[in-house]
Amino acid sequence: MFISFEGLDFSGKSTQLRLLRQYLENKNRKVKLIREPGGTIISEKIRDLLLDKKNDNMCDETELLLFAASRAQLIKEVIVPNLENGYLVLSDRFHHSSLAYQGYGRGISVEFIENLMEFVVKDAKPDVTFFIDIPVEEINKRKSLSLFERGGADRIELSRDNFYIKVRNGYLKLFDNDDSIVIIDGLKPIEEIHSEIVDKLNEFGI
Amino acid sequence: MFISFEGLDFSGKSTQLRLLRQYLENKNRKVKLIREPGGTIISEKIRDLLLDKKNDNMCDETELLLFAASRAQLIKEVIVPNLENGYLVLSDRFHHSSLAYQGYGRGISVEFIENLMEFVVKDAKPDVTFFIDIPVEEINKRKSLSLFERGGADRIELSRDNFYIKVRNGYLKLFDNDDSIVIIDGLKPIEEIHSEIVDKLNEFGI
Repeated sequence: MFISFEGLDFSGKSTQLRLLRQYLENKNRKVKLIREPGGTIISEKIRDLLLDKKNDNMCDETELLLFAASRAQLIKEVIVPNLENGYLVLSDRFHHSSLAYQGYGRGISVEFIENLMEFVVKDAKPDVTFFIDIPVEEINKRKSLSLFERGGADRIELSRDNFYIKVRNGYLKLFDNDDSIVIIDGLKPIEEIHSEIVDKLNEFGI
Repeated sequence: MFISFEGLDFSGKSTQLRLLRQYLENKNRKVKLIREPGGTIISEKIRDLLLDKKNDNMCDETELLLFAASRAQLIKEVIVPNLENGYLVLSDRFHHSSLAYQGYGRGISVEFIENLMEFVVKDAKPDVTFFIDIPVEEINKRKSLSLFERGGADRIELSRDNFYIKVRNGYLKLFDNDDSIVIIDGLKPIEEIHSEIVDKLNEFGI
């Protein structure tokens, strides 16, 4: 079983992933938590390129292709072997992020990205995707605290509101009428969101 | 004007590119020489990833996408601005290498790579491509000397004969019946090849 989490930056994905891993491990499930981009030696080097603020002149095509390259390596080295070994794989972002951020956000052809993702992802598509939805204004409220803790935003987090509005609308368009997507109200309290996710997974028999 | 050079590793491309640049600069032409992958800060970092022997478990999809990412950045930062400023751009490898190496060599769908290259290259296609053709056996003869000078082969140069046979046949298939391609016998002496290239460029009015 492969589960991905999607959402705008600062939507609380990572917190929910940690809570869910804890919950599943307490139930003695074998869990593999991954984050994108990254997760292999090669993919982490690609991550460094993607998030380095010095690379502020990176063109949109390069950004898309680096995310795709990182993902291809992660699928081969980590996702497929872990699924084959009976692990529950939880991913912080996956292919929907490319469609929402580089497609709807940056304006690259969504049809082209769908073909590219078909090439990269093949059968390794998530069985369930949780989309933690927050309004764009919420990003700014949460940003300052989080950045203070982490010591600064990365290249993509430095994007403007206008970009995030397009990304959020893109997500909502992508996720309209798709049974494998669970949309969660990200403004609810952390514990309430966690319970909602656990309930949903119980429905899916996990 | 944009001119690319293609060929197997050790075919003598780089030598010919240096000679051609010298010749054109002696005629007071503004020349920009580039090599792939590389040529921008971001692309050189991608080059390091691609050629590092430690990355010997890199999957074919990742390899293809990293070459494409490096190329997209090179086009935006170097090729298009230089062409607009009246430079003659000479490139050591370009999009045909992806088709020959990753397509025919590694076995990735050539049709998919054509679509990917359309997305990356757009209007920045070479006006002329010189393919310096050598038989695969010649690689091994030339390899030992060159590697002794350079201190070792990179990840892709470590490929086996069988791979190079597929790459060469791929090139020949790609270049069949294409007016923008000049096929050169790479076994001829260096100076003779150089003259042939200069003559051909004169025909093209350069």
